[in-house]
Amino acid sequence: MAPGGPRRCRRLEGEAARAVLANADTLLFDCDGVLWRGEAAVSGAAETLGKLAALGKRLCYVTNNSGRTRAAYIEKLRRLGFPPAEPRHIFSSAFCAARYLRQALPPNSAAYVLGSPALAAELEAVGIPYLGTGPAALPGPAPADWVKAPLVPAVRAVLVGFDEHFSYAKLCQALRYLLRGGPDCLLVGTNRDHRLPLEGGAGIPGTGCLVKAVETAAQREAFIVGKPNRFMFDCVAKEFPVDPARTIMVGDRLDTDILMGNDCGLTTLLTLTGVTALDEVRGHQDSGCPARQGLVPDYYVDSIADLLPVLGE
Amino acid sequence: MAPGGPRRCRRLEGEAARAVLANADTLLFDCDGVLWRGEAAVSGAAETLGKLAALGKRLCYVTNNSGRTRAAYIEKLRRLGFPPAEPRHIFSSAFCAARYLRQALPPNSAAYVLGSPALAAELEAVGIPYLGTGPAALPGPAPADWVKAPLVPAVRAVLVGFDEHFSYAKLCQALRYLLRGGPDCLLVGTNRDHRLPLEGGAGIPGTGCLVKAVETAAQREAFIVGKPNRFMFDCVAKEFPVDPARTIMVGDRLDTDILMGNDCGLTTLLTLTGVTALDEVRGHQDSGCPARQGLVPDYYVDSIADLLPVLGE
Repeated sequence: MAPGGPRRCRRLEGEAARAVLANADTLLFDCDGVLWRGEAAVSGAAETLGKLAALGKRLCYVTNNSGRTRAAYIEKLRRLGFPPAEPRHIFSSAFCAARYLRQALPPNSAAYVLGSPALAAELEAVGIPYLGTGPAALPGPAPADWVKAPLVPAVRAVLVGFDEHFSYAKLCQALRYLLRGGPDCLLVGTNRDHRLPLEGGAGIPGTGCLVKAVETAAQREAFIVGKPNRFMFDCVAKEFPVDPARTIMVGDRLDTDILMGNDCGLTTLLTLTGVTALDEVRGHQDSGCPARQGLVPDYYVDSIADLLPVLGE
Repeated sequence: MAPGGPRRCRRLEGEAARAVLANADTLLFDCDGVLWRGEAAVSGAAETLGKLAALGKRLCYVTNNSGRTRAAYIEKLRRLGFPPAEPRHIFSSAFCAARYLRQALPPNSAAYVLGSPALAAELEAVGIPYLGTGPAALPGPAPADWVKAPLVPAVRAVLVGFDEHFSYAKLCQALRYLLRGGPDCLLVGTNRDHRLPLEGGAGIPGTGCLVKAVETAAQREAFIVGKPNRFMFDCVAKEFPVDPARTIMVGDRLDTDILMGNDCGLTTLLTLTGVTALDEVRGHQDSGCPARQGLVPDYYVDSIADLLPVLGE
């Protein structure tokens, strides 16, 4: 951000682009809407990342999506022609949630999980016992039955991620663990994205809807692992010696990618291949509202492939 | 409310109680926590209402619970020894939601309903076609399948009530109707109660959790039929010639019963047989915060049975 004034978003091109990229040693990429849309890579994106890797840049992947393991991300990057990545380069909200619980939970604690098999796998990988994944039915016909189902004594956290099996039965059980444990039972959400965009403009309800349902029942706020919370950047900074002044956050969402990047003092770059149009940026920029300044990226590109020409041969 | 100053909640007893009751010709009763708890009547409540009826008072029942039909309320009142009630005296959020949709929907419109068989029955009674009740499964393994399930053309409202079959599949379908219709598809919730108290202090997630999930997905606010919205009082006022100055709202919740009563200019009476302790009232009263003044009742009793002695032989 230019000192002494509000942030103004400029197109990243030409000499300025060369200078910004030369000054960076780490780039953090959001995935959906930046590198790919569904199963199709953004045209030229894989080549761009290949060039950046060849120039010795550190490439990390920072995604709120809790529906895939790190191994699945590595495989998808490979399949779509991106440069090879190792597990330590992947910071998904599923992995970061497991990491958060490992540091926040007392030993021998378990988690009640509303989430995908991928979220369960990441918990397993860090040695946290869990239950709750998959479909669940109410344990009887009447509300009095619902509050009599056994509770596992070791559960000291409720973790909410994307869960296609989310149901009233699970919501009920989550509330019971939270009421039993009080403040000693953690409430953690992978992210607050309210919708997942699909190809063709359709959208399905995002994890944020499920987090809200649990928060409303329990009347308490969840700790959110994903962007815009800085926890995911802290995970990157624990793994690698990153200097915020030499790090670029590349994303397609203002209220997650760009907000986190700005909050952490990174250079922020919006790409227009995802959910955001430039008009939204201008709206924030011209609002005169200090809170909305955090949603204004330093730079934008139509696509990250626009960086190819300034990366040389 | 006493003119010229903040509302102070006083115990309703003795001469003041006689005067307040003599001045009233209509009493609106919340049910759970006021007349009964679960299947047990509050001791002396039935006798109290019997006396009020014998004195010629009009007794109406105003409840956010969307899980029972008006017929079921009449039967429960009878079973627990309360004076006989007719359907027109029962204002449940299920009945009032059906009434709202009947007036707000264009002819030949249908509703997608997250709710109980009772809510469905009230829609049927006013002639609104509906779908969605009961369990639902996702129509395939992948998100791309979920957004391809057929949508019924006539649906122009999503109605959210208490639904033990609430699921991600239903949330997804509700969002699809709301996105298809845009502002032409109504979003209506029966109430925002975040928890339903059970006997013994346990609680289960309330309709408010489900409403929040749908609101978060759709990024719009639902019209809420139930208390504290004045819509339920407006339903009473359409059915009977009620004078707010001669009407008492009796309830056990400050943020629903008492707030609605105060907003509508009724005399408000809190009973301590439900979810509220007197300390909460004092907290609002002493807060100096104008918004919290609306949560302070005019009067309180330990139980509505405390009114028996001032109702005479």
